[in-house]
Amino acid sequence: MEISLPRVAEMLHSASTIVLTAHVHPDGDSLGSMLALYQALQADGKKVHLLLDDVVPATYHFLPNWKKISKPVDNDRFTTDLLVILDASDIERIGKVQSAVKAPILNIDHHISNTRFADYTYIDSKVAATGEIILELLNLMKYKVTADIGTCLYTAIATDCGFFRYANTSASTLRYAADLVEAGAQPQSISEALEQRSLSNIVTLTKVLQTIEMHYEGKIATMTIFPDLLHDPDENTEGFINYARSIEGVEIAILFRAIDEQTVRISFRSHRADVSQVALAFGGGGHIRAAGCTVHDTLENAIAQVLPVAIGQIR
Amino acid sequence: MEISLPRVAEMLHSASTIVLTAHVHPDGDSLGSMLALYQALQADGKKVHLLLDDVVPATYHFLPNWKKISKPVDNDRFTTDLLVILDASDIERIGKVQSAVKAPILNIDHHISNTRFADYTYIDSKVAATGEIILELLNLMKYKVTADIGTCLYTAIATDCGFFRYANTSASTLRYAADLVEAGAQPQSISEALEQRSLSNIVTLTKVLQTIEMHYEGKIATMTIFPDLLHDPDENTEGFINYARSIEGVEIAILFRAIDEQTVRISFRSHRADVSQVALAFGGGGHIRAAGCTVHDTLENAIAQVLPVAIGQIR
Repeated sequence: MEISLPRVAEMLHSASTIVLTAHVHPDGDSLGSMLALYQALQADGKKVHLLLDDVVPATYHFLPNWKKISKPVDNDRFTTDLLVILDASDIERIGKVQSAVKAPILNIDHHISNTRFADYTYIDSKVAATGEIILELLNLMKYKVTADIGTCLYTAIATDCGFFRYANTSASTLRYAADLVEAGAQPQSISEALEQRSLSNIVTLTKVLQTIEMHYEGKIATMTIFPDLLHDPDENTEGFINYARSIEGVEIAILFRAIDEQTVRISFRSHRADVSQVALAFGGGGHIRAAGCTVHDTLENAIAQVLPVAIGQIR
Repeated sequence: MEISLPRVAEMLHSASTIVLTAHVHPDGDSLGSMLALYQALQADGKKVHLLLDDVVPATYHFLPNWKKISKPVDNDRFTTDLLVILDASDIERIGKVQSAVKAPILNIDHHISNTRFADYTYIDSKVAATGEIILELLNLMKYKVTADIGTCLYTAIATDCGFFRYANTSASTLRYAADLVEAGAQPQSISEALEQRSLSNIVTLTKVLQTIEMHYEGKIATMTIFPDLLHDPDENTEGFINYARSIEGVEIAILFRAIDEQTVRISFRSHRADVSQVALAFGGGGHIRAAGCTVHDTLENAIAQVLPVAIGQIR
């Protein structure tokens, strides 16, 4: 059932014990939203438990109370008044929390793809981040937005709109951010914490930048990650593709990442061209300007197959 | 004489012909502020001339009307009601415009170091960008903020506060940005335009990243630019030092740039340590977290002299 934000507020008001969770592979928005709501509900005297079926990446260890987030173990069973799922569009995305918690489910999300899986659903797909909804909710509930809550929600909002650079940055996104700075969020400390990276990540970036190749009169830039290029196979290479996309004249950037001899993961980014069509042609998907697919072939063959299709998307 | 913003508005209202200029080595704030004020005054029927003793960098060629900016030639003499100098804290910073224009000078700026050189001065050192002052001014003058003006001022503000990441990002910085998005500024197009870089710049970045060295238990990261490393000696290396500063555990980042056999330009960035003291020790200066100096010695000797002083600033 889809409910209004005042109804969400009522449900939270009447619950005494609450479990908060969010999607696996957590990001700034899911973690910031969870921790902000946690602190506000705690301050109201509620018994709140933070569960997440994943680890909190080191990048987010500056968020107040992140250590309060625990991972459910196999036999965990929580009985609670309400399970609140934040920033997740599908029940599968909360992993083992689903089986660990027996309670009515309230889902608060901003993804247009939301499957309406919950007992109670509040979706606002016009906002850039779930963090915007949480701020609106805290205001509605007359909860004080402390500096710590401000830090969590500024992180939530800023990370989901690329520090106010993506198309989802609306006037109200910026006004919410203003309120959070007023509450005590410090944009500089937050951005410095988020931008920290390991020396090994810089080394990897350097190696990947060396693989840039230009195609089709400079309209396509490719990058290639060979299996032995990464010191650590789990190395975070998110964002690397943006270097290729930022080159003058480039319309489509493609990152080929060879996982093994017969598996290549491919990411696409564009300025205007519809790369979701390219991804779709290889069984993948995504958005107009950001998409991905996996090709089961050698790196050489994958490049040879994908490039012509990408060229076909450039007018 | 320091004047109020309403007085600035009156002066602009009563002028029929106006020359607008800003500092050499123009940036997003100076160009965006100039072009925004130009468009608003033009729409009011005033004869406005944009002069700048420098070229407009290609990065800013997306700004509406940038081509209207012209460089004064040696024998140019402009007679006008008012010369408005934007975002410049010192008369020397406007170059040849000083001798080319004979008119009372109105200076609008946000630099705390402003020398009060003008006939009429309006300074607000609390704002992140001169662009914030211009927006306040346009509102005061009841000038319509068009989408084009919005683009110019969003660029001005966003570039001077590092897209809302620097310490100068205040709640009102973000609220002004919100107003500009409402007026039609598109954060995505603006950020994409600003982030464009040449392939050769990426190649240079890659080379510079390879020079990163860690010192003092990983608390200092250095980068070195040898004279022959740059394909083009004017290559823009701004921002490169931030890669060194972003490495986990690094407190001070130092970029050594050898200009010739006996000249090394040195930039410092820190998280907390006072690097202005390090720069000062070598005849330079700057801010607590961003400073610079020039050492007249070989690269080797410069590094050997500067490192111990930098270490001394780490608690």
